[in-house]
Amino acid sequence: MTERSLVSALPALADGPVTVQGWVDTVRDQKKVQFVVLRDESGAVQLVNPRSEGREGISDAISGLAQGSFLTVHGQLKHDERVKLGGLEVRIDELVVETEAIAETPIADDTSIDKRLDWRFLDLRQPRNNLLFRVQTTFLHALRTYWVERDYIEIFTPKLMASASESKAELFKVDYFDRPAYLAQSPQFFKQMAQTAGFGKVFEVGPVFRADPSFTSRHATEFTGVDAEISWIDSHEDVMRMQEELLRAGLQAVKDKHGDEIRELFDVEITVPELPFPRIPLLEARRIVEERGHHIDRADLDLDPEGERQIAAYVKETYGHEFVFVTDYPASIRPFYHMRHDDDPTLTKSYDLIWNGVEITTGAQREHRVERIEAQALEKGMDLEELEFYLDFFRYGAPPHGGFGMGLARVLMLMLHQSTLREVTFLFRGPNRLTP
Amino acid sequence: MTERSLVSALPALADGPVTVQGWVDTVRDQKKVQFVVLRDESGAVQLVNPRSEGREGISDAISGLAQGSFLTVHGQLKHDERVKLGGLEVRIDELVVETEAIAETPIADDTSIDKRLDWRFLDLRQPRNNLLFRVQTTFLHALRTYWVERDYIEIFTPKLMASASESKAELFKVDYFDRPAYLAQSPQFFKQMAQTAGFGKVFEVGPVFRADPSFTSRHATEFTGVDAEISWIDSHEDVMRMQEELLRAGLQAVKDKHGDEIRELFDVEITVPELPFPRIPLLEARRIVEERGHHIDRADLDLDPEGERQIAAYVKETYGHEFVFVTDYPASIRPFYHMRHDDDPTLTKSYDLIWNGVEITTGAQREHRVERIEAQALEKGMDLEELEFYLDFFRYGAPPHGGFGMGLARVLMLMLHQSTLREVTFLFRGPNRLTP
Repeated sequence: MTERSLVSALPALADGPVTVQGWVDTVRDQKKVQFVVLRDESGAVQLVNPRSEGREGISDAISGLAQGSFLTVHGQLKHDERVKLGGLEVRIDELVVETEAIAETPIADDTSIDKRLDWRFLDLRQPRNNLLFRVQTTFLHALRTYWVERDYIEIFTPKLMASASESKAELFKVDYFDRPAYLAQSPQFFKQMAQTAGFGKVFEVGPVFRADPSFTSRHATEFTGVDAEISWIDSHEDVMRMQEELLRAGLQAVKDKHGDEIRELFDVEITVPELPFPRIPLLEARRIVEERGHHIDRADLDLDPEGERQIAAYVKETYGHEFVFVTDYPASIRPFYHMRHDDDPTLTKSYDLIWNGVEITTGAQREHRVERIEAQALEKGMDLEELEFYLDFFRYGAPPHGGFGMGLARVLMLMLHQSTLREVTFLFRGPNRLTP
Repeated sequence: MTERSLVSALPALADGPVTVQGWVDTVRDQKKVQFVVLRDESGAVQLVNPRSEGREGISDAISGLAQGSFLTVHGQLKHDERVKLGGLEVRIDELVVETEAIAETPIADDTSIDKRLDWRFLDLRQPRNNLLFRVQTTFLHALRTYWVERDYIEIFTPKLMASASESKAELFKVDYFDRPAYLAQSPQFFKQMAQTAGFGKVFEVGPVFRADPSFTSRHATEFTGVDAEISWIDSHEDVMRMQEELLRAGLQAVKDKHGDEIRELFDVEITVPELPFPRIPLLEARRIVEERGHHIDRADLDLDPEGERQIAAYVKETYGHEFVFVTDYPASIRPFYHMRHDDDPTLTKSYDLIWNGVEITTGAQREHRVERIEAQALEKGMDLEELEFYLDFFRYGAPPHGGFGMGLARVLMLMLHQSTLREVTFLFRGPNRLTP
């Protein structure tokens, strides 16, 4: 590999020969001197070429440079505090154009998000977008490290299934040789299977598919799910405790590694949350929201999006906290596999986690007693025959267990105060978008 | 959460009160004393109940215990070197049956792999299988840590695509609202896109789908792919150097954490490979194999499976090494996007990695100059119109880059000397298998 210096490493280097590689951000082609701003994955640096005798080859090459062309440049690093961009520049000795870009770029700073997504590979060259995926990397690695240090097992559950995982709605059908298959809407059933297999504690980060025709800023047909499931819990409280520790670990890592850059490029201050997060039962949350003057406009007992914002505002004012666990959802609005309270079977041992006014997680203790799972499934009008393979998991013994699922892009969206999942997904997928 | 002791933690505890939780492995129901072997995710422990006055409740419960039932047991830990199983036992004070298992287990030690997969959640309770997925967890975390420490960006590329990623064969079709979509056969195009987006170095661990009707021990319709792609390389040599360092890091971590258990349960000694791995150009490898008396029975220039075993045997004898990079494959048997040698365009800057006689990886430097990509695609008879979205990536500038893809289950299979992917996949998917 060529001895290459990242732009971010230049400030620490002494004046002298250096090789940088990246793409052309801007060219200022003046009479006596030419400037090129070169960008790589770590930053931007000014290259300079005085137009003097014997340097015509370099001058001509620079005059012909299109934005986006990739270059290898050998030159002399010179620290000079008069240079606005980082207080240094590289005087070009040799310039190799690796590939030339088409001169006209199809997107600009003010291009609509939809057109930017058509040209996502150019859009991702923006320093903000590059930072976004470095933040995601750091966040996830902190989560996985939390789990691995506590002996969780990583699983990869199949995405091809013979039947629906949670509901028949929003299901993508696949031609599987001579029969139909379906894309997994969540790893729910299989991470529970891992509990009956005696795995104890598991996690998975992987794709989740929803044939959801919505076009909101919060929905996608394919997204990355972050899932965990643990055995031998007493209640959903144990799941919440794990998740809040996990999020604190993730946000601490992000703040430590990228806090300054995030402040600079997103104007956001990363807050490492205090533990425990506030917990409010749903029915109390509804009362609080209504008392604040918002009428919840839903046929069922859930919060509406404005209700989520209102309870978040209440928690922020009352506890100074960005997160709130809304707990104990009525059984009527929870899946059949959520465990119910012994002393009030109308309520489940479940929660939603709301961050800055938006739901990012559903978690619960699961029912592990097969007779109760069957009864609850029947009550929801489900076909037990289609659930046979799932019910079998529990017929040969099962430990008490629970877990959560969390949308990765939602977390990123809220962490960096973005308005839509489209901005924080590498390549967004929606009802109208399958490319690039 | 209940104060629970893992079985693996018992040897270090002093005699006295303890709570263990797990499932029933065996029951010996004798006249004067009852024994239960309880298993959890960390090991097995003997529970003992002397049949004496006042303990009838516990005695009756034990007499009714089926294998697989999950228990919580409070009791007194007693170290006693006469106890074969770990030199300790727990005298039961209280026994709670969390869930009862059906008394007849559908599988036994000698059950066929296919039937064991029908009951995979029971099959996974075997200590060997549990260890297998802990090994996988440790291995992958070491790989990701290697990458994260070197500033790689983790990406999640979409699995839903508008057209084929590599070839039209082996493609699963999805009903995507009112049009067809296809499941990604690899993240190839998108990890290359990340290079033109200036990400520099990326990795991905995620599902890969192949509508391959084969029933061999080495094929699956869905498997976990481990992918990396890096910019600014000089040749495929840079990719091989990264991959061999990566594998050494992974195997070192596995040996450190699980070496003893792997020796005990799989009778396998994990070898941490020396660097560099041997490299042999394909045409030379073919010559060596033929000289060893094996006639390679293929119409093209590739090795056949016996040829892979023979070159591995040669490398083992000659260099004492389990790995070999077979390099410089003819362009005729490589995809259009592999870069060709400048001085011999019939050969590509590519490699396969063979471990103990089986191929686990294909890697290469990719062609980044769009005119050459187009020419090579046309030469392979591909339709440029369908590749437009991919070709666009390179029209706005691209750095030299390369990478590899590796099948996770193949790695596990070879690491633990297993005979089929079915044994090392959490839930195997093949042409005839979509459940559980």
